[in-house]
Amino acid sequence: MKAEIITVGDEILIGQIVDTNAAYIARRLNETGIVVNERTSVGDDAGQITECIGRAFGSSDIVIMTGGLGPTKDDITKKTLAEMFGSRLVNDARVEEHVRNMLALRGIPFNELNRGQSLVPECCTVLFNVHGTAPGMWFERDGRVLVSLPGVPFEMKHLMDDEVLPRLKKRFELRSVVHRTMITEGIAESMLAECIAAWESALPPYLKLAYLPAPNIVRLRLSAYEVEGDAVRGEIEMRFRELYDIIPDNIIGYETATLQETVHRLLTDRGLTLAVAESCTGGSIASKFTAMAGASAYFKLGAVTYSNEAKISVLGVSPDTLAHYGAVSEQTAREMAEGARRIAGTDYAVATTGIAGPSGGTAEKPVGTVWFAVASEEGTVAVMRNSGTDRGQIIERATAYAIELLRDRITGRR
Amino acid sequence: MKAEIITVGDEILIGQIVDTNAAYIARRLNETGIVVNERTSVGDDAGQITECIGRAFGSSDIVIMTGGLGPTKDDITKKTLAEMFGSRLVNDARVEEHVRNMLALRGIPFNELNRGQSLVPECCTVLFNVHGTAPGMWFERDGRVLVSLPGVPFEMKHLMDDEVLPRLKKRFELRSVVHRTMITEGIAESMLAECIAAWESALPPYLKLAYLPAPNIVRLRLSAYEVEGDAVRGEIEMRFRELYDIIPDNIIGYETATLQETVHRLLTDRGLTLAVAESCTGGSIASKFTAMAGASAYFKLGAVTYSNEAKISVLGVSPDTLAHYGAVSEQTAREMAEGARRIAGTDYAVATTGIAGPSGGTAEKPVGTVWFAVASEEGTVAVMRNSGTDRGQIIERATAYAIELLRDRITGRR
Repeated sequence: MKAEIITVGDEILIGQIVDTNAAYIARRLNETGIVVNERTSVGDDAGQITECIGRAFGSSDIVIMTGGLGPTKDDITKKTLAEMFGSRLVNDARVEEHVRNMLALRGIPFNELNRGQSLVPECCTVLFNVHGTAPGMWFERDGRVLVSLPGVPFEMKHLMDDEVLPRLKKRFELRSVVHRTMITEGIAESMLAECIAAWESALPPYLKLAYLPAPNIVRLRLSAYEVEGDAVRGEIEMRFRELYDIIPDNIIGYETATLQETVHRLLTDRGLTLAVAESCTGGSIASKFTAMAGASAYFKLGAVTYSNEAKISVLGVSPDTLAHYGAVSEQTAREMAEGARRIAGTDYAVATTGIAGPSGGTAEKPVGTVWFAVASEEGTVAVMRNSGTDRGQIIERATAYAIELLRDRITGRR
Repeated sequence: MKAEIITVGDEILIGQIVDTNAAYIARRLNETGIVVNERTSVGDDAGQITECIGRAFGSSDIVIMTGGLGPTKDDITKKTLAEMFGSRLVNDARVEEHVRNMLALRGIPFNELNRGQSLVPECCTVLFNVHGTAPGMWFERDGRVLVSLPGVPFEMKHLMDDEVLPRLKKRFELRSVVHRTMITEGIAESMLAECIAAWESALPPYLKLAYLPAPNIVRLRLSAYEVEGDAVRGEIEMRFRELYDIIPDNIIGYETATLQETVHRLLTDRGLTLAVAESCTGGSIASKFTAMAGASAYFKLGAVTYSNEAKISVLGVSPDTLAHYGAVSEQTAREMAEGARRIAGTDYAVATTGIAGPSGGTAEKPVGTVWFAVASEEGTVAVMRNSGTDRGQIIERATAYAIELLRDRITGRR
């Protein structure tokens, strides 16, 4: 079963927003056994919308659209669909009541624009939007299905999961689409491809391999379309297990696995605790760990000590060290890590101190200079790394490297 | 001048990645005076790629593609383009030398796959990729231009800015595309539309108004396509200035303005300092401020005190308070903010303590319960807000609300 995704809105064509809706819908359709054939974005223009739907119906059984359902004049999707399906707009009493209630809760008066939101094309099935004021709509023509959803991500996701997918499963006979991704690190794409060439050649023809490189990691994805799910999932597991013999040191996990998850598991499984002392990374390391459920079991303290005073008063860094070596130095990084570990009473502490820029760099310590330290029972290690030239990039890379260094210390790699 | 953007890769169609490249290219084309007509994503499939390009050439003068240029078997864009343009692949000596140098720097051997990267269709102009191993390619046919760029965002951006845009400006006679966005907060979309209806009706016909709602904010965008830039920019400024008389309390700024930028400016302009004490937000507030250049002037301390011990030892929260009221309580929030302000010696301190879940909730204090406090010379205020049900959402909303409360205290709104 093939589908096409159409996202509507000038904000997409001018690059004002990143189209995350299309990615969500694509993922959910794949999980449901529906192959996405093409994704298109068009502006708030009746002619373009109509032409694009016509084209999509030529090659796909299912079309999922988002956007253009708001109450203001620039939103024209509903009117365009009504015209396309030759159906007049009628008031839906249940939608109107819901819109009135939602607005009343927020203390907003119901006006003419809101009244427009309860109008729907007579020929469609209304997909009730519990979380918003714009209803979803389900149309059928010549055995094909077109669904129009609001563009607000939260509302779209809810309608997709609760209304669209269950209805598609009932409406069509679906097979399985299977994707499984293994994450490797520390090996370049071309070397990896060479290392696993024999393994790749031996894959059965229905398994499609993709390489997805990103800084420091390469993701390997195996995909199979419209197959018997359970058998293929088993086959993929077996194929990936073979890689543990070929590149044992380069695998960090599956799907969206990250190094902070590896550290999270290591700390949790071993009953170890962590403190973080950050200068240039500014809370980014702490927020990576605390974003994971269960972090409170090991995460005891994060200290964002931007000022020298805070480094002294909170972490106990020596004023002499700061005066003599400067805030961005091996000695300061060491004292920050050791201070955080001592104050929080943790097994491990990681510290960063560097120059995130754009100002503050010198010839000796240019923007991007970052010192890292990890303190533990085995002692303290400190490393310097130049982490880039752009503030955001420096913070991101330094955060990633601090977590890598921590992993290496916990596992004894370093 | 009209353009179409085509992004190639199965990872986009299965929703494994969010297509940020298309948004970047769209934004840069608009800034250069080129109207983006449509955006399409197709899989790594020669037939689909060829068909999509043919269609794009039917309605646009310029086609910008990304993806499918890597060294591995799943990357087929280059071969497909060579066939489409009837051109054989030839070795480019400069590209080969560059690939060899790049790999040598990283200690990676040059292999057969890398050799393939220095092959280019004979008919194209090579766009030299300083930052990566896959060159960009510029094709011309019947007065139309097709550009193929690598999918790695960093490399694509560099080629877009340094090679593609300068060449497009030289190749075509371009007019201006102007977009300007005003950010409003605290007023619902339908009410806003009603408030500014007269203003909207009076807009000249070449200015297109769009409403972009998001949680708590509505963005208003005025757009004009293929116009005289300077005159239109002046007209838009004048129109937006009129809104300051209609909705003076609801405007927070232009373009991507955020509330943390407002607070950043307030603190910087007034020479005030800030400390942050976070429990459930886990460093997220600190990282929002420290992500902004110049934050070190006012940001003195961030403390992520997840454990009770850290709340006591670092912030001086009283053990009795924790025992009697619990970590998630008005009293603890107040003592965290006051402790952070005292220890860091700052003008303001903001604190959060709550239950981010998924576990840890009780009937009395369910997941999502968050206490906020801001301490300053004027005293301490504390507020409770239920911030949602999902861990990520709770952290995000609580972070936003803490910054709002801080803004309100600094400006005297609360």
